[in-house]
Amino acid sequence: MSAKKVLVYGGRGALGSACVSKFKELNWWVGNIDLTANDQADANIIVDKEAGWTEQESAILDQLQGLLNTNQLDAVICVAGGWAGGNASKDLAKNADLMWKQSVWSSTISATIGSRFLKPGGVLTLTGADAALKGTPGMIGYGLAKAAVHQLTKSLAEEKSGLPDNSLVVSILPITLDTPMNRKWMANADFSKWTPLDFIAETFAKWTEGKDRPKNGSLIRLVTNDNKTNLIAAE
Amino acid sequence: MSAKKVLVYGGRGALGSACVSKFKELNWWVGNIDLTANDQADANIIVDKEAGWTEQESAILDQLQGLLNTNQLDAVICVAGGWAGGNASKDLAKNADLMWKQSVWSSTISATIGSRFLKPGGVLTLTGADAALKGTPGMIGYGLAKAAVHQLTKSLAEEKSGLPDNSLVVSILPITLDTPMNRKWMANADFSKWTPLDFIAETFAKWTEGKDRPKNGSLIRLVTNDNKTNLIAAE
Repeated sequence: MSAKKVLVYGGRGALGSACVSKFKELNWWVGNIDLTANDQADANIIVDKEAGWTEQESAILDQLQGLLNTNQLDAVICVAGGWAGGNASKDLAKNADLMWKQSVWSSTISATIGSRFLKPGGVLTLTGADAALKGTPGMIGYGLAKAAVHQLTKSLAEEKSGLPDNSLVVSILPITLDTPMNRKWMANADFSKWTPLDFIAETFAKWTEGKDRPKNGSLIRLVTNDNKTNLIAAE
Repeated sequence: MSAKKVLVYGGRGALGSACVSKFKELNWWVGNIDLTANDQADANIIVDKEAGWTEQESAILDQLQGLLNTNQLDAVICVAGGWAGGNASKDLAKNADLMWKQSVWSSTISATIGSRFLKPGGVLTLTGADAALKGTPGMIGYGLAKAAVHQLTKSLAEEKSGLPDNSLVVSILPITLDTPMNRKWMANADFSKWTPLDFIAETFAKWTEGKDRPKNGSLIRLVTNDNKTNLIAAE
């Protein structure tokens, strides 16, 4: 039996690296799409930051076509993203543009990858944000980009979205992730309320193995208290 | 008493032209922001379609600075937008990019204009879509852009969003507008369920005059039956 295959979009970031490690532990073939390579991955597709949305999409699809046959991936895990604050009074276009590129470009390209390379019954995960379920006046660009990812999740879960039959699309909605950068910048926070990256990677692994799959199109809030994370569907 | 002032973003489109006409009828000063001029407007700011998000924002703000003092507008009416179909299997980045530029760039720039030029108690309206309250598998780029506008509306209605005190932010969520283009392309549809443009322009005029203002941050669905439109807050 050939190894299962997963693609991690953003596989060089903190959460993405945890996912690459987890799937390698499970002996999967792992591809990484990011601005820089992850040496643990079996293949790396490097995104040209200066390219536009459609150019990034077609460059990535072309490279994947050289690596994979159609309908061959078991999972596409999109954990690319970033954060920027700011309200409407200053640099809104600049902040929103960055958030859009980091969160929404990566998410729609993951959807397109899913439509071409995911197996029937495969898994696509995207990354939203718990905060964006409501208004986010202090981080307007971030909130609107994540809200777009949430609605994209709903669209992809419906019939004729372009994804293969019986595929599962879910967005995770983190509150705060326990990353080295967050520990650096919020050193006095209560870490017991932060979600461990390994827990998320394990959750993705379970879903790809058909265990405890949430309802298709779910927005799954990651609620951590006393170092224990609960998966809670929004709405 | 000097004339009241309104800026219509997208004032050359079908709905935008109806708004420009309505406010001119009421003897307001009317500015238009669009790709081409509206001769009925008192001032026109022409958007450079080839420019990026931040460049469009700063070019528009610079031109407004020459026309207006800060905190001088009674209303900013953003009715710019467009439509594109398509699911995840083809041209998603291309369609989403177009929808993003038409709906979200115009909306965030309107928000920035609002933060600088709107009077305390002024009105900012944005344009969402009823369909984007749920998944939109056949028009994925459209749905995600409109969902972003919905969340932006919520952000702007909260404290410290950057808008002046007591301002009102509302998105209208059309189902189908009764425009010449829609009549051309859907000639056999039931027009009695389409929302007349003049009704929307009148509604904006009422809100700017302080009449029947919805709750701040509302997403107002435009539900038309038997040629009568009801304003129904979503959620």
